[in-house]
Amino acid sequence: MIKKDMVYEGKAKKVYSTEDPNLVIIHFKDDATAGNGAKKGTIENKGILNNKITATLYEILEKNGIKTHFKKMLNERDQLCEKVEIIPLEVIVRNVIAGSMAARVGIEEGTVPSNTIFEICYKNDKYNDPLINDHHAVAMGVTTYEDLAKIYDTTAKINNLLKETFDEEGITLVDFKIEFGKNKDGEILLADEITPDTCRLWDKETGEKLDKDRFRRDLGGIEEAYIEILKRLGAK
Amino acid sequence: MIKKDMVYEGKAKKVYSTEDPNLVIIHFKDDATAGNGAKKGTIENKGILNNKITATLYEILEKNGIKTHFKKMLNERDQLCEKVEIIPLEVIVRNVIAGSMAARVGIEEGTVPSNTIFEICYKNDKYNDPLINDHHAVAMGVTTYEDLAKIYDTTAKINNLLKETFDEEGITLVDFKIEFGKNKDGEILLADEITPDTCRLWDKETGEKLDKDRFRRDLGGIEEAYIEILKRLGAK
Ligand SMILES: Nc1ncnc2c1ncn2[C@@H]1O[C@H](COP(=O)(O)OP(=O)(O)O)[C@@H](O)[C@H]1O
Ligand SMILES: Nc1ncnc2c1ncn2[C@@H]1O[C@H](COP(=O)(O)OP(=O)(O)O)[C@@H](O)[C@H]1O
Ligand SMILES: [Mg+2]
Ligand SMILES: [Mg+2]
Repeated sequence: MIKKDMVYEGKAKKVYSTEDPNLVIIHFKDDATAGNGAKKGTIENKGILNNKITATLYEILEKNGIKTHFKKMLNERDQLCEKVEIIPLEVIVRNVIAGSMAARVGIEEGTVPSNTIFEICYKNDKYNDPLINDHHAVAMGVTTYEDLAKIYDTTAKINNLLKETFDEEGITLVDFKIEFGKNKDGEILLADEITPDTCRLWDKETGEKLDKDRFRRDLGGIEEAYIEILKRLGAK
Repeated sequence: MIKKDMVYEGKAKKVYSTEDPNLVIIHFKDDATAGNGAKKGTIENKGILNNKITATLYEILEKNGIKTHFKKMLNERDQLCEKVEIIPLEVIVRNVIAGSMAARVGIEEGTVPSNTIFEICYKNDKYNDPLINDHHAVAMGVTTYEDLAKIYDTTAKINNLLKETFDEEGITLVDFKIEFGKNKDGEILLADEITPDTCRLWDKETGEKLDKDRFRRDLGGIEEAYIEILKRLGAK
Protein backbone atom coordinates (compact mmCIF):
# COMPACT_ATOMS: atom_id res chain seq x y z
CA MET A 1 0.00 0.00 0.00
CA ILE A 2 1.40 3.36 -1.05
CA LYS A 3 0.85 6.79 0.51
CA LYS A 4 -1.06 9.24 -1.65
CA ASP A 5 -1.85 12.64 -0.16
CA MET A 6 -1.28 13.73 3.39
CA VAL A 7 -4.85 14.42 4.48
CA TYR A 8 -4.07 15.57 8.04
CA GLU A 9 -1.05 16.49 10.08
CA GLY A 10 -1.67 16.34 13.81
CA LYS A 11 0.52 16.91 16.81
CA ALA A 12 1.97 13.37 16.86
CA LYS A 13 1.00 11.71 13.59
CA LYS A 14 0.30 12.28 9.94
CA VAL A 15 -2.57 10.67 8.08
CA TYR A 16 -2.22 9.73 4.39
CA SER A 17 -4.80 8.60 1.93
CA THR A 18 -4.09 5.47 -0.12
CA GLU A 19 -5.37 4.11 -3.42
CA ASP A 20 -8.11 2.39 -1.38
CA PRO A 21 -10.63 5.03 -0.24
CA ASN A 22 -11.40 2.96 2.87
CA LEU A 23 -7.80 2.75 4.07
CA VAL A 24 -5.39 5.32 5.46
CA ILE A 25 -1.74 5.14 6.39
CA ILE A 26 -0.91 6.60 9.78
CA HIS A 27 2.66 7.85 10.18
CA PHE A 28 4.04 8.26 13.72
CA LYS A 29 6.25 11.31 14.30
CA ASP A 30 8.74 12.06 17.08
CA ASP A 31 6.97 15.35 17.87
CA ALA A 32 5.72 15.69 21.40
CA THR A 33 3.41 18.34 22.81
CA ALA A 34 1.88 18.93 26.20
CA GLY A 35 -0.75 21.28 27.58
CA ASN A 36 -2.53 21.34 24.21
CA GLY A 37 0.60 22.44 22.34
CA ALA A 38 1.79 24.96 24.97
CA LYS A 39 4.95 22.86 25.39
CA LYS A 40 6.62 21.47 22.28
CA GLY A 41 9.57 19.14 21.73
CA THR A 42 10.66 15.88 20.21
CA ILE A 43 11.27 12.52 21.83
CA GLU A 44 13.87 10.58 19.91
CA ASN A 45 12.45 7.50 18.19
CA LYS A 46 9.03 8.05 19.76
CA GLY A 47 7.34 7.52 16.41
CA ILE A 48 9.02 4.14 15.96
CA LEU A 49 8.23 3.04 19.51
CA ASN A 50 4.62 4.25 19.46
CA ASN A 51 3.89 2.65 16.10
CA LYS A 52 5.04 -0.71 17.49
CA ILE A 53 3.34 -0.26 20.88
CA THR A 54 0.02 0.64 19.24
CA ALA A 55 0.29 -2.29 16.85
CA THR A 56 1.00 -4.70 19.73
CA LEU A 57 -1.89 -3.46 21.84
CA TYR A 58 -4.39 -3.31 18.97
CA GLU A 59 -3.55 -6.91 18.04
CA ILE A 60 -4.27 -7.97 21.61
CA LEU A 61 -7.56 -6.03 21.59
CA GLU A 62 -8.63 -7.44 18.21
CA LYS A 63 -7.85 -10.98 19.40
CA ASN A 64 -10.21 -10.31 22.29
CA GLY A 65 -13.13 -9.12 20.22
CA ILE A 66 -12.61 -5.36 20.10
CA LYS A 67 -13.22 -3.86 16.66
CA THR A 68 -10.38 -1.50 15.77
CA HIS A 69 -9.22 0.43 12.72
CA PHE A 70 -5.84 -1.38 12.76
CA LYS A 71 -4.89 -3.51 9.76
CA LYS A 72 -1.11 -3.95 9.87
CA MET A 73 2.25 -2.32 10.41
CA LEU A 74 3.84 -1.31 7.11
CA ASN A 75 7.26 -0.23 8.34
CA GLU A 76 8.95 1.35 11.36
CA ARG A 77 6.75 4.44 11.41
CA ASP A 78 3.69 3.60 9.30
CA GLN A 79 0.62 1.51 9.88
CA LEU A 80 -2.30 0.72 7.62
CA CYS A 81 -5.69 1.43 9.15
CA GLU A 82 -9.31 1.47 8.15
CA LYS A 83 -10.39 5.00 7.42
CA VAL A 84 -12.96 6.31 9.86
CA GLU A 85 -14.72 9.54 10.56
CA ILE A 86 -13.41 10.36 14.00
CA ILE A 87 -16.06 11.13 16.64
CA PRO A 88 -14.57 14.31 18.14
CA LEU A 89 -14.45 12.96 21.69
CA GLU A 90 -11.51 11.97 23.82
CA VAL A 91 -12.76 9.04 25.86
CA ILE A 92 -10.79 8.79 29.08
CA VAL A 93 -10.67 6.02 31.67
CA ARG A 94 -9.14 6.48 35.11
CA ASN A 95 -8.26 3.54 37.35
CA VAL A 96 -6.12 5.75 39.57
CA ILE A 97 -6.64 9.49 39.99
CA ALA A 98 -3.91 11.64 38.41
CA GLY A 99 -3.35 14.54 36.06
CA SER A 100 -6.20 16.85 35.21
CA MET A 101 -8.71 15.12 37.46
CA ALA A 102 -6.42 15.38 40.50
CA ALA A 103 -6.00 19.09 39.79
CA ARG A 104 -9.65 19.78 38.92
CA VAL A 105 -11.14 18.65 42.22
CA GLY A 106 -8.11 18.61 44.54
CA ILE A 107 -7.55 14.89 45.00
CA GLU A 108 -4.04 13.62 45.62
CA GLU A 109 -2.46 11.93 42.61
CA GLY A 110 -2.31 8.19 43.19
CA THR A 111 -5.68 7.94 44.95
CA VAL A 112 -7.49 4.75 43.93
CA PRO A 113 -11.24 5.38 43.58
CA SER A 114 -13.88 2.80 44.48
CA ASN A 115 -15.27 3.00 40.95
CA THR A 116 -13.84 3.21 37.45
CA ILE A 117 -13.99 6.76 36.15
CA PHE A 118 -15.05 7.39 32.55
CA GLU A 119 -14.85 10.86 31.05
CA ILE A 120 -15.40 12.48 27.70
CA CYS A 121 -13.70 15.61 26.44
CA TYR A 122 -14.66 17.52 23.33
CA LYS A 123 -11.69 16.99 20.96
CA ASN A 124 -11.16 20.56 19.84
CA ASP A 125 -7.83 22.33 20.32
CA LYS A 126 -9.48 25.75 20.04
CA TYR A 127 -11.42 25.10 23.26
CA ASN A 128 -8.60 23.14 24.94
CA ASP A 129 -10.34 19.76 24.75
CA PRO A 130 -12.80 20.65 27.54
CA LEU A 131 -14.40 18.05 29.76
CA ILE A 132 -18.04 17.62 28.79
CA ASN A 133 -20.77 15.13 29.65
CA ASP A 134 -23.08 12.95 27.59
CA HIS A 135 -25.82 15.58 27.42
CA HIS A 136 -23.39 18.17 26.09
CA ALA A 137 -22.08 15.78 23.44
CA VAL A 138 -25.59 15.00 22.26
CA ALA A 139 -26.65 18.67 22.35
CA MET A 140 -23.62 19.53 20.24
CA GLY A 141 -24.62 16.93 17.66
CA VAL A 142 -21.31 15.14 18.13
CA THR A 143 -22.90 11.77 18.93
CA THR A 144 -26.11 10.14 20.20
CA TYR A 145 -27.04 8.61 23.56
CA GLU A 146 -27.17 5.21 21.79
CA ASP A 147 -23.67 5.50 20.35
CA LEU A 148 -22.35 6.71 23.70
CA ALA A 149 -23.74 3.60 25.38
CA LYS A 150 -21.85 1.44 22.86
CA ILE A 151 -18.69 3.52 23.29
CA TYR A 152 -18.73 3.23 27.10
CA ASP A 153 -19.40 -0.49 26.88
CA THR A 154 -16.47 -1.05 24.53
CA THR A 155 -14.28 1.29 26.56
CA ALA A 156 -14.91 -0.70 29.75
CA LYS A 157 -13.88 -3.89 27.90
CA ILE A 158 -10.77 -2.19 26.54
CA ASN A 159 -9.88 -1.02 30.03
CA ASN A 160 -10.13 -4.54 31.41
CA LEU A 161 -8.00 -5.98 28.62
CA LEU A 162 -5.34 -3.27 28.86
CA LYS A 163 -5.24 -3.35 32.65
CA GLU A 164 -4.60 -7.09 32.54
CA THR A 165 -2.01 -6.77 29.78
CA PHE A 166 0.00 -4.14 31.65
CA ASP A 167 -0.54 -5.79 35.01
CA GLU A 168 1.16 -8.96 33.77
CA GLU A 169 4.19 -6.84 32.91
CA GLY A 170 4.36 -5.17 36.31
CA ILE A 171 2.74 -1.93 35.19
CA THR A 172 -0.29 -0.10 36.60
CA LEU A 173 -2.55 1.34 33.93
CA VAL A 174 -3.40 4.58 35.73
CA ASP A 175 -5.45 6.20 32.98
CA PHE A 176 -5.70 6.45 29.21
CA LYS A 177 -7.39 8.31 26.37
CA ILE A 178 -8.89 6.68 23.30
CA GLU A 179 -10.76 7.82 20.23
CA PHE A 180 -13.47 6.16 18.22
CA GLY A 181 -14.62 6.63 14.66
CA LYS A 182 -17.21 5.32 12.26
CA ASN A 183 -16.24 3.40 9.15
CA LYS A 184 -18.10 3.54 5.84
CA ASP A 185 -20.67 1.04 7.15
CA GLY A 186 -21.39 3.15 10.24
CA GLU A 187 -19.63 0.69 12.55
CA ILE A 188 -17.93 2.24 15.56
CA LEU A 189 -14.24 1.28 15.62
CA LEU A 190 -11.49 2.02 18.09
CA ALA A 191 -9.11 4.35 16.19
CA ASP A 192 -6.01 6.45 16.75
CA GLU A 193 -3.25 5.21 19.09
CA ILE A 194 -2.67 3.66 22.51
CA THR A 195 0.84 4.55 23.65
CA PRO A 196 2.74 6.15 26.53
CA ASP A 197 1.64 9.45 24.93
CA THR A 198 -1.97 8.60 25.70
CA CYS A 199 -1.70 6.45 28.85
CA ARG A 200 -0.30 6.92 32.33
CA LEU A 201 1.78 3.84 33.13
CA TRP A 202 3.43 3.40 36.51
CA ASP A 203 5.94 0.68 37.39
CA LYS A 204 4.29 -1.41 40.12
CA GLU A 205 7.45 -1.94 42.15
CA THR A 206 9.20 1.41 41.94
CA GLY A 207 6.25 3.68 41.15
CA GLU A 208 8.34 5.10 38.31
CA LYS A 209 6.41 6.91 35.59
CA LEU A 210 6.83 5.21 32.20
CA ASP A 211 4.85 7.64 30.06
CA LYS A 212 4.58 11.16 28.66
CA ASP A 213 4.46 12.68 32.15
CA ARG A 214 8.28 12.37 32.00
CA PHE A 215 8.12 14.92 29.17
CA ARG A 216 5.29 17.04 30.63
CA ARG A 217 7.05 17.30 33.99
CA ASP A 218 10.68 17.42 32.75
CA LEU A 219 11.65 14.18 34.52
CA GLY A 220 14.21 13.08 31.91
CA GLY A 221 14.65 9.49 30.69
CA ILE A 222 11.72 9.85 28.31
CA GLU A 223 12.90 7.66 25.43
CA GLU A 224 14.09 5.05 27.96
CA ALA A 225 10.60 4.89 29.47
CA TYR A 226 8.96 4.29 26.08
CA ILE A 227 11.62 1.64 25.27
CA GLU A 228 10.87 -0.05 28.59
CA ILE A 229 7.14 -0.22 27.79
CA LEU A 230 7.81 -1.74 24.37
CA LYS A 231 10.30 -4.20 25.91
CA ARG A 232 7.79 -5.41 28.47
CA LEU A 233 5.04 -5.68 25.84
CA GLY A 234 7.53 -7.51 23.64
CA ALA A 235 6.91 -10.54 25.80
CA LYS A 236 3.41 -10.58 24.28
CA MET B 1 -39.08 30.52 65.64
CA ILE B 2 -36.06 32.49 66.85
CA LYS B 3 -32.56 32.65 65.35
CA LYS B 4 -29.84 31.16 67.54
CA ASP B 5 -26.31 31.09 66.13
CA MET B 6 -25.26 31.96 62.62
CA VAL B 7 -23.87 28.63 61.45
CA TYR B 8 -22.81 29.74 57.96
CA GLU B 9 -22.45 32.95 56.02
CA GLY B 10 -22.38 32.41 52.29
CA LYS B 11 -22.15 34.76 49.35
CA ALA B 12 -25.89 35.52 49.22
CA LYS B 13 -27.42 34.14 52.42
CA LYS B 14 -26.81 33.46 56.08
CA VAL B 15 -27.91 30.28 57.81
CA TYR B 16 -28.98 30.33 61.47
CA SER B 17 -29.66 27.48 63.85
CA THR B 18 -32.92 27.53 65.81
CA GLU B 19 -34.10 25.92 69.02
CA ASP B 20 -35.21 22.95 66.86
CA PRO B 21 -32.09 21.02 65.73
CA ASN B 22 -33.91 19.99 62.54
CA LEU B 23 -34.77 23.51 61.44
CA VAL B 24 -32.68 26.42 60.19
CA ILE B 25 -33.53 29.99 59.35
CA ILE B 26 -32.18 31.19 56.02
CA HIS B 27 -31.62 34.93 55.76
CA PHE B 28 -31.41 36.48 52.27
CA LYS B 29 -28.81 39.26 51.86
CA ASP B 30 -28.50 41.93 49.16
CA ASP B 31 -24.91 40.84 48.42
CA ALA B 32 -24.24 39.77 44.85
CA THR B 33 -21.16 38.05 43.47
CA ALA B 34 -20.21 36.78 40.06
CA GLY B 35 -17.35 34.70 38.69
CA ASN B 36 -17.05 32.85 42.00
CA GLY B 37 -16.62 36.06 44.00
CA ALA B 38 -14.31 37.79 41.49
CA LYS B 39 -16.96 40.51 41.10
CA LYS B 40 -18.73 41.78 44.20
CA GLY B 41 -21.58 44.22 44.77
CA THR B 42 -25.04 44.62 46.20
CA ILE B 43 -28.40 44.64 44.49
CA GLU B 44 -30.85 46.75 46.42
CA ASN B 45 -33.66 44.72 48.00
CA LYS B 46 -32.40 41.53 46.37
CA GLY B 47 -32.69 39.65 49.67
CA ILE B 48 -36.32 40.63 50.05
CA LEU B 49 -37.17 39.78 46.45
CA ASN B 50 -35.30 36.46 46.43
CA ASN B 51 -36.81 35.33 49.73
CA LYS B 52 -40.28 35.87 48.26
CA ILE B 53 -39.44 34.40 44.84
CA THR B 54 -37.96 31.27 46.42
CA ALA B 55 -40.95 30.88 48.73
CA THR B 56 -43.38 31.22 45.80
CA LEU B 57 -41.55 28.68 43.64
CA TYR B 58 -40.99 26.17 46.46
CA GLU B 59 -44.70 26.27 47.30
CA ILE B 60 -45.51 25.48 43.68
CA LEU B 61 -42.99 22.64 43.67
CA GLU B 62 -44.26 21.21 46.99
CA LYS B 63 -47.83 21.33 45.70
CA ASN B 64 -46.66 19.25 42.76
CA GLY B 65 -44.99 16.51 44.80
CA ILE B 66 -41.39 17.76 45.04
CA LYS B 67 -39.91 17.34 48.51
CA THR B 68 -38.16 20.54 49.53
CA HIS B 69 -36.55 21.95 52.68
CA PHE B 70 -38.98 24.92 52.68
CA LYS B 71 -41.33 25.36 55.66
CA LYS B 72 -42.49 28.98 55.62
CA MET B 73 -41.51 32.60 55.22
CA LEU B 74 -40.90 34.24 58.60
CA ASN B 75 -40.47 37.84 57.49
CA GLU B 76 -39.17 39.92 54.55
CA ARG B 77 -35.71 38.34 54.54
CA ASP B 78 -35.99 35.11 56.54
CA GLN B 79 -37.44 31.73 55.82
CA LEU B 80 -37.71 28.64 57.98
CA CYS B 81 -36.34 25.50 56.37
CA GLU B 82 -35.63 21.91 57.28
CA LYS B 83 -31.96 21.50 58.08
CA VAL B 84 -30.14 19.30 55.60
CA GLU B 85 -26.62 18.21 54.97
CA ILE B 86 -25.99 19.75 51.58
CA ILE B 87 -24.67 17.39 48.89
CA PRO B 88 -21.81 19.51 47.52
CA LEU B 89 -23.05 19.47 43.94
CA GLU B 90 -24.53 22.24 41.86
CA VAL B 91 -27.11 20.51 39.70
CA ILE B 92 -27.65 22.50 36.52
CA VAL B 93 -30.33 22.19 33.85
CA ARG B 94 -30.10 23.88 30.48
CA ASN B 95 -33.10 24.26 28.19
CA VAL B 96 -31.28 26.84 26.09
CA ILE B 97 -27.49 27.06 25.77
CA ALA B 98 -25.95 30.08 27.48
CA GLY B 99 -23.26 31.13 29.92
CA SER B 100 -20.46 28.70 30.77
CA MET B 101 -21.64 26.01 28.39
CA ALA B 102 -21.75 28.41 25.44
CA ALA B 103 -18.20 29.49 26.27
CA ARG B 104 -16.86 26.00 27.06
CA VAL B 105 -17.59 24.44 23.70
CA GLY B 106 -18.15 27.46 21.46
CA ILE B 107 -21.90 27.33 20.90
CA GLU B 108 -23.80 30.54 20.34
CA GLU B 109 -25.83 31.70 23.33
CA GLY B 110 -29.51 31.14 22.64
CA THR B 111 -29.09 27.86 20.78
CA VAL B 112 -31.89 25.44 21.66
CA PRO B 113 -30.56 21.88 21.93
CA SER B 114 -32.55 18.81 20.88
CA ASN B 115 -32.17 17.37 24.38
CA THR B 116 -32.34 18.72 27.94
CA ILE B 117 -28.86 19.21 29.33
CA PHE B 118 -28.15 18.17 32.92
CA GLU B 119 -24.80 18.99 34.51
CA ILE B 120 -23.21 18.65 37.91
CA CYS B 121 -20.48 20.86 39.30
CA TYR B 122 -18.50 20.19 42.45
CA LYS B 123 -19.65 22.94 44.85
CA ASN B 124 -16.27 24.10 46.12
CA ASP B 125 -15.15 27.71 45.77
CA LYS B 126 -11.48 26.72 46.12
CA TYR B 127 -11.69 24.81 42.83
CA ASN B 128 -14.10 27.25 41.17
CA ASP B 129 -17.10 24.89 41.20
CA PRO B 130 -15.68 22.76 38.38
CA LEU B 131 -17.87 20.75 36.04
CA ILE B 132 -17.61 17.06 36.89
CA ASN B 133 -19.52 13.94 35.88
CA ASP B 134 -21.28 11.20 37.83
CA HIS B 135 -18.17 9.01 38.02
CA HIS B 136 -16.13 11.85 39.50
CA ALA B 137 -18.79 12.59 42.10
CA VAL B 138 -18.91 8.95 43.16
CA ALA B 139 -15.11 8.62 43.17
CA MET B 140 -14.90 11.70 45.37
CA GLY B 141 -17.31 10.12 47.85
CA VAL B 142 -19.69 13.04 47.39
CA THR B 143 -22.67 10.87 46.43
CA THR B 144 -23.62 7.46 45.03
CA TYR B 145 -24.88 6.38 41.63
CA GLU B 146 -28.24 5.52 43.30
CA ASP B 147 -28.65 8.98 44.83
CA LEU B 148 -27.62 10.60 41.54
CA ALA B 149 -30.36 8.69 39.73
CA LYS B 150 -32.91 10.06 42.24
CA ILE B 151 -31.46 13.56 41.95
CA TYR B 152 -31.65 13.61 38.15
CA ASP B 153 -35.18 12.21 38.22
CA THR B 154 -36.34 14.92 40.64
CA THR B 155 -34.41 17.57 38.74
CA ALA B 156 -36.18 16.68 35.48
CA LYS B 157 -39.54 17.02 37.24
CA ILE B 158 -38.50 20.36 38.75
CA ASN B 159 -37.43 21.56 35.31
CA ASN B 160 -40.82 20.69 33.83
CA LEU B 161 -42.69 22.43 36.64
CA LEU B 162 -40.53 25.54 36.55
CA LYS B 163 -40.55 25.75 32.75
CA GLU B 164 -44.34 25.67 32.77
CA THR B 165 -44.59 28.19 35.61
CA PHE B 166 -42.36 30.72 33.89
CA ASP B 167 -43.79 29.97 30.46
CA GLU B 168 -47.24 31.00 31.66
CA GLU B 169 -45.76 34.36 32.66
CA GLY B 170 -44.08 34.96 29.33
CA ILE B 171 -40.61 33.94 30.47
CA THR B 172 -38.22 31.37 29.05
CA LEU B 173 -36.43 29.32 31.71
CA VAL B 174 -33.05 29.17 29.96
CA ASP B 175 -31.11 27.37 32.70
CA PHE B 176 -30.92 27.06 36.47
CA LYS B 177 -28.85 25.67 39.33
CA ILE B 178 -30.25 23.80 42.30
CA GLU B 179 -28.82 22.08 45.36
CA PHE B 180 -29.99 19.04 47.25
CA GLY B 181 -29.38 17.91 50.79
CA LYS B 182 -30.24 15.03 53.08
CA ASN B 183 -32.41 15.52 56.15
CA LYS B 184 -31.99 13.62 59.41
CA ASP B 185 -33.89 10.65 57.95
CA GLY B 186 -31.62 10.45 54.93
CA GLU B 187 -34.30 11.77 52.59
CA ILE B 188 -33.05 13.85 49.67
CA LEU B 189 -34.71 17.28 49.67
CA LEU B 190 -34.43 20.20 47.30
CA ALA B 191 -32.65 22.90 49.32
CA ASP B 192 -31.17 26.38 48.90
CA GLU B 193 -32.86 28.92 46.61
CA ILE B 194 -34.41 29.31 43.17
CA THR B 195 -34.17 32.96 42.14
CA PRO B 196 -32.92 35.22 39.35
CA ASP B 197 -29.51 34.70 41.03
CA THR B 198 -29.62 31.01 40.14
CA CYS B 199 -31.69 30.97 36.93
CA ARG B 200 -31.42 32.55 33.52
CA LEU B 201 -34.83 34.03 32.67
CA TRP B 202 -35.49 35.68 29.34
CA ASP B 203 -38.62 37.64 28.46
CA LYS B 204 -40.28 35.72 25.62
CA GLU B 205 -41.35 38.77 23.67
CA THR B 206 -38.42 41.12 24.01
CA GLY B 207 -35.61 38.63 24.80
CA GLU B 208 -34.70 40.87 27.73
CA LYS B 209 -32.64 39.23 30.45
CA LEU B 210 -34.46 39.22 33.80
CA ASP B 211 -31.74 37.65 35.94
CA LYS B 212 -28.28 38.03 37.46
CA ASP B 213 -26.69 38.31 34.00
CA ARG B 214 -27.73 42.00 34.24
CA PHE B 215 -25.27 42.23 37.14
CA ARG B 216 -22.60 39.91 35.68
CA ARG B 217 -22.60 41.79 32.37
CA ASP B 218 -23.23 45.31 33.71
CA LEU B 219 -26.52 45.72 31.89
CA GLY B 220 -28.18 47.93 34.53
CA GLY B 221 -31.81 47.64 35.66
CA ILE B 222 -30.96 44.77 37.94
CA GLU B 223 -33.39 45.42 40.80
CA GLU B 224 -36.10 46.18 38.22
CA ALA B 225 -35.58 42.77 36.62
CA TYR B 226 -35.92 40.95 39.96
CA ILE B 227 -39.05 43.01 40.74
CA GLU B 228 -40.48 42.07 37.35
CA ILE B 229 -39.96 38.35 38.05
CA LEU B 230 -41.66 38.61 41.43
CA LYS B 231 -44.49 40.63 39.90
CA ARG B 232 -45.15 38.02 37.23
CA LEU B 233 -44.95 35.20 39.77
CA GLY B 234 -47.28 37.21 41.98
CA ALA B 235 -50.08 36.10 39.71
CA LYS B 236 -49.49 32.59 41.14
N1 LIG C 1 -8.47 5.45 11.22
C1 LIG C 1 -8.46 6.80 11.17
N2 LIG C 1 -9.04 7.45 10.13
C2 LIG C 1 -9.03 8.81 10.07
N3 LIG C 1 -8.47 9.60 11.01
C3 LIG C 1 -7.89 8.99 12.07
C4 LIG C 1 -7.85 7.58 12.20
N4 LIG C 1 -7.22 7.28 13.37
C5 LIG C 1 -6.88 8.45 13.93
N5 LIG C 1 -7.26 9.49 13.17
C6 LIG C 1 -7.07 10.93 13.42
O1 LIG C 1 -5.81 11.25 12.88
C7 LIG C 1 -5.13 12.21 13.69
C8 LIG C 1 -3.83 11.61 14.19
O2 LIG C 1 -2.90 12.60 14.41
P1 LIG C 1 -2.57 13.23 15.83
O3 LIG C 1 -1.18 13.72 15.74
O4 LIG C 1 -2.95 12.32 16.95
O5 LIG C 1 -3.63 14.44 15.77
P2 LIG C 1 -4.18 15.45 16.87
O6 LIG C 1 -3.09 16.45 17.12
O7 LIG C 1 -5.40 16.04 16.19
O8 LIG C 1 -4.55 14.61 18.08
C9 LIG C 1 -6.07 12.51 14.85
O9 LIG C 1 -6.81 13.69 14.57
C10 LIG C 1 -7.00 11.31 14.88
O10 LIG C 1 -8.27 11.65 15.41
N1 LIG D 1 -31.78 23.60 54.32
C1 LIG D 1 -30.49 23.85 54.44
N2 LIG D 1 -29.77 23.38 55.49
C2 LIG D 1 -28.46 23.65 55.58
N3 LIG D 1 -27.75 24.37 54.68
C3 LIG D 1 -28.42 24.86 53.61
C4 LIG D 1 -29.81 24.63 53.43
N4 LIG D 1 -30.19 25.23 52.29
C5 LIG D 1 -29.10 25.82 51.77
N5 LIG D 1 -28.02 25.60 52.55
C6 LIG D 1 -26.65 26.08 52.34
O1 LIG D 1 -26.59 27.36 52.93
C7 LIG D 1 -25.75 28.23 52.17
C8 LIG D 1 -26.56 29.40 51.68
O2 LIG D 1 -25.78 30.53 51.52
P1 LIG D 1 -25.16 30.99 50.11
O3 LIG D 1 -24.95 32.47 50.28
O4 LIG D 1 -25.96 30.50 48.96
O5 LIG D 1 -23.78 30.20 50.21
P2 LIG D 1 -22.66 29.88 49.12
O6 LIG D 1 -21.88 31.15 48.91
O7 LIG D 1 -21.86 28.77 49.78
O8 LIG D 1 -23.39 29.39 47.87
C9 LIG D 1 -25.24 27.41 51.01
O9 LIG D 1 -23.95 26.90 51.30
C10 LIG D 1 -26.25 26.27 50.91
O10 LIG D 1 -25.66 25.11 50.37
MG1 LIG E 1 -3.84 12.82 18.83
MG1 LIG F 1 -25.26 29.76 47.09
